[in-house]
Amino acid sequence: MRDVQGERDDRRIAIDRVGVGSVSYPIVVLDQKDNYQHTVASVSMSVSLPHDYRGAHMSRFIEVLNEFQGKVTIGAMELIAEHLRTVLDASFAEIKFSFPYFISRKAPVTGLASFTRYDVSFTAVKGESCFDLVTEVSVPVQTLCPCSKEISEDGAHNQRAFVTVAVRMEGLVWIEELVDIAERNASAPVYTLLKREDEKFVTEQAYNNPRFVEDVLRDTALALEAEERITWYNIKVVSNESIHNHDAFASLKRNKKEGAQ
Amino acid sequence: MRDVQGERDDRRIAIDRVGVGSVSYPIVVLDQKDNYQHTVASVSMSVSLPHDYRGAHMSRFIEVLNEFQGKVTIGAMELIAEHLRTVLDASFAEIKFSFPYFISRKAPVTGLASFTRYDVSFTAVKGESCFDLVTEVSVPVQTLCPCSKEISEDGAHNQRAFVTVAVRMEGLVWIEELVDIAERNASAPVYTLLKREDEKFVTEQAYNNPRFVEDVLRDTALALEAEERITWYNIKVVSNESIHNHDAFASLKRNKKEGAQ
Amino acid sequence: MRDVQGERDDRRIAIDRVGVGSVSYPIVVLDQKDNYQHTVASVSMSVSLPHDYRGAHMSRFIEVLNEFQGKVTIGAMELIAEHLRTVLDASFAEIKFSFPYFISRKAPVTGLASFTRYDVSFTAVKGESCFDLVTEVSVPVQTLCPCSKEISEDGAHNQRAFVTVAVRMEGLVWIEELVDIAERNASAPVYTLLKREDEKFVTEQAYNNPRFVEDVLRDTALALEAEERITWYNIKVVSNESIHNHDAFASLKRNKKEGAQ
Amino acid sequence: MRDVQGERDDRRIAIDRVGVGSVSYPIVVLDQKDNYQHTVASVSMSVSLPHDYRGAHMSRFIEVLNEFQGKVTIGAMELIAEHLRTVLDASFAEIKFSFPYFISRKAPVTGLASFTRYDVSFTAVKGESCFDLVTEVSVPVQTLCPCSKEISEDGAHNQRAFVTVAVRMEGLVWIEELVDIAERNASAPVYTLLKREDEKFVTEQAYNNPRFVEDVLRDTALALEAEERITWYNIKVVSNESIHNHDAFASLKRNKKEGAQ
Repeated sequence: MRDVQGERDDRRIAIDRVGVGSVSYPIVVLDQKDNYQHTVASVSMSVSLPHDYRGAHMSRFIEVLNEFQGKVTIGAMELIAEHLRTVLDASFAEIKFSFPYFISRKAPVTGLASFTRYDVSFTAVKGESCFDLVTEVSVPVQTLCPCSKEISEDGAHNQRAFVTVAVRMEGLVWIEELVDIAERNASAPVYTLLKREDEKFVTEQAYNNPRFVEDVLRDTALALEAEERITWYNIKVVSNESIHNHDAFASLKRNKKEGAQ
Repeated sequence: MRDVQGERDDRRIAIDRVGVGSVSYPIVVLDQKDNYQHTVASVSMSVSLPHDYRGAHMSRFIEVLNEFQGKVTIGAMELIAEHLRTVLDASFAEIKFSFPYFISRKAPVTGLASFTRYDVSFTAVKGESCFDLVTEVSVPVQTLCPCSKEISEDGAHNQRAFVTVAVRMEGLVWIEELVDIAERNASAPVYTLLKREDEKFVTEQAYNNPRFVEDVLRDTALALEAEERITWYNIKVVSNESIHNHDAFASLKRNKKEGAQ
Repeated sequence: MRDVQGERDDRRIAIDRVGVGSVSYPIVVLDQKDNYQHTVASVSMSVSLPHDYRGAHMSRFIEVLNEFQGKVTIGAMELIAEHLRTVLDASFAEIKFSFPYFISRKAPVTGLASFTRYDVSFTAVKGESCFDLVTEVSVPVQTLCPCSKEISEDGAHNQRAFVTVAVRMEGLVWIEELVDIAERNASAPVYTLLKREDEKFVTEQAYNNPRFVEDVLRDTALALEAEERITWYNIKVVSNESIHNHDAFASLKRNKKEGAQ
Repeated sequence: MRDVQGERDDRRIAIDRVGVGSVSYPIVVLDQKDNYQHTVASVSMSVSLPHDYRGAHMSRFIEVLNEFQGKVTIGAMELIAEHLRTVLDASFAEIKFSFPYFISRKAPVTGLASFTRYDVSFTAVKGESCFDLVTEVSVPVQTLCPCSKEISEDGAHNQRAFVTVAVRMEGLVWIEELVDIAERNASAPVYTLLKREDEKFVTEQAYNNPRFVEDVLRDTALALEAEERITWYNIKVVSNESIHNHDAFASLKRNKKEGAQ
């Protein structure tokens, strides 16, 4: 059969990325306790295409995905991306896994354990002599408004918020470490299971620890600045304001090697 | 050209509904102040299909939508549905418009106005000698947890919540009236624009008015029970808990004519 | 600490359902080959609340979820729902698990295997002396338009479509069986991995097997009628039309014990 | 009342952006025929925050939005962004409006008109002496696979696809012009209303005009290269493959002033 994708193209336009997206696939991810965690990823895989090739052979992306049998770790991303690059015969290959990741968390007073979900992604780009990896985790937390607390006789509005931290690293930083940084710089963590004494604890913890999105952002940034294994970060804090039907947000991106990006 | 849809079918299976969905279309809706409000609807239109017809003529649905030039009111729903039924030559026709609807709300202290968005739908079913219309509105509000307030030294967790009220009516009930019922039975309304003195007001209003989802549901139900123009209702209250990454909800459906459904 | 939820309520309104929703949790599901498949569920759990109780103890829902350690099978649903009902001391308990489920499918010519994702839900309601279970699976397929094929010189528009089948059963029907029914009544199945000879096969299979959404619906209904273990079904076929930016759909619900619902 | 946001901050971290997001608001947009089109936008507004300020005054964003009474045009974006910058007393202000935009399109044979929805966004960034504006439009189209056509006896798989074009410009380029470029470089446009003779036309048009996502991308790029008013572009073509339950995509970003970005 004729290989239409493999034909020459004379439009003289090289393509940055061509590939497949929204591929839903079961994967296993290594966690900090050396266990493999089964989850479901949305996968995007693509390559650069030279100006004189008409198309990419899309089925090969799925074949590469199958070869790795769904085993995905931060450490394996370069190998997977390089294999993709080789199989597709491309200058650059890019692969992104986005997936829910669960960590068992203990309620602060009763110590009862339950799973909290964190949305994680690994994005790798591999060229012949270069490699780039961005690890991102989105952490649900609680924020309690300092202004509302200050000006009100009683109470203070608070709400669910999300701290999304993307990092580049030299030396492994675990998802669990990024989660800890985000949680301890919010007004309080969120938990799936809380008994009454736990609920009292987190209510008071948040009230005694009021934070604007700006505060959560800055203290998260300070923690990432202090962490030598992290060379670049991009933080976004989004708070689902309980007094509005819209969000408040703050964001900051910084390349520590250049001082700023 | 051959009319494939119009062919006879011998599988002897009548179809409940066949039609088009997720049609995004500009519409205008009459509001309580007699103004026409422009908005964007997601439209679903369908008919019943007798067992001996192979298919419905889908393009006619869009032609009917065009004929009404996007003018949609609670009062016009029967006419639109009946026209659909006639044009498609069907026993039953169903049409649903789902759209954002904006009401200008004044902040409680400064009186500054801003628009709040409410998600509304009208669903009509028309048969030869019957007509049914359900009007639904989803209202963002604030809930403050009575348990958290009671057991904590200071503060109480609160969050954005949504009260969704669906009703059948005898005599017109405005969207604005349903919104008012939902808002006044929550811990506090939400607003798009609040200055500092307003924020103080709603923070204290919520703190002095703690409500479980069960409380919001019951008081909304009492208000709908007292309203004679409403003959049937279905209420769902969903609270985006600020101490969890999941929701609390309560729901109740009741046909006032039968006592319960 | 005071038990605010446990207080008496005098509004005299019993609540249909109160509980927690959008709980994201890791689960394991038994598949037809007797393997446990790890996946991620969105869980909703609720109970009926008598008129004289102010609220439900929401944390108990999560404790029940933890007790079962995420092991979810069609056969275990009654046990889980009954346990929920007992722990919450309620007349009725309802629990719904919605999750992606993967089946390894072989490409039609090369036989290369890959995973296809199907969205599945189990919804159980348990009362003192009654139990109801609905199993639903959404199956991606291809539909090719008979009208477009008939009237055009060459080609025919085709597109991705979804067949959603919900059933009540007497005797176990596997998810895999419902998937097979939906796939074989469409123009062609979809696959995650297809090589060129497979692509030729499915293109021709779809072209030789044109189906309206009405056709897919009716043939799926015939198959469910013939299956004695199924006592009730609700089918919806939604086709993401390639010549429009909206969908065509057909739906049918039938209680085989009553002739119709 | 104390101005908590206005307090000094000593963490020495300047914030890139702080503001409000997911604000749903009615707006009016000028179209190419000099008519104002009413629609509903999701609005994001933010500013940079110096290291020594604790927070931004969030309510001022909404006040600025109200001042412009929802009148949004490409030409007015600089004025709106500059006003935001001034009112918030910031070095940089950013504002993004995302909204559905409708254009009346005539069916190719019958000439019957119907509205097609295009998702549009305007993103403006204003500094003291600089201004940047990106206009983006997402255009639904049909793609028909050249490989599938070539290797199959009859037919060819085709599907709904989306061409998203973002541009920077010198001199006004209308949304309508970007839509035209995307539509004419696909296998066929999509329409909301098609009668049988129109359906025959677009089926044959697509069959005679097979395009990979790579082809749509390259021909769209050639058209944008030839358009002198456009100085920068970012194109993404995503095809909802009818033989898979995942997408094929291609993307290309280019700064014409630098040769490449």
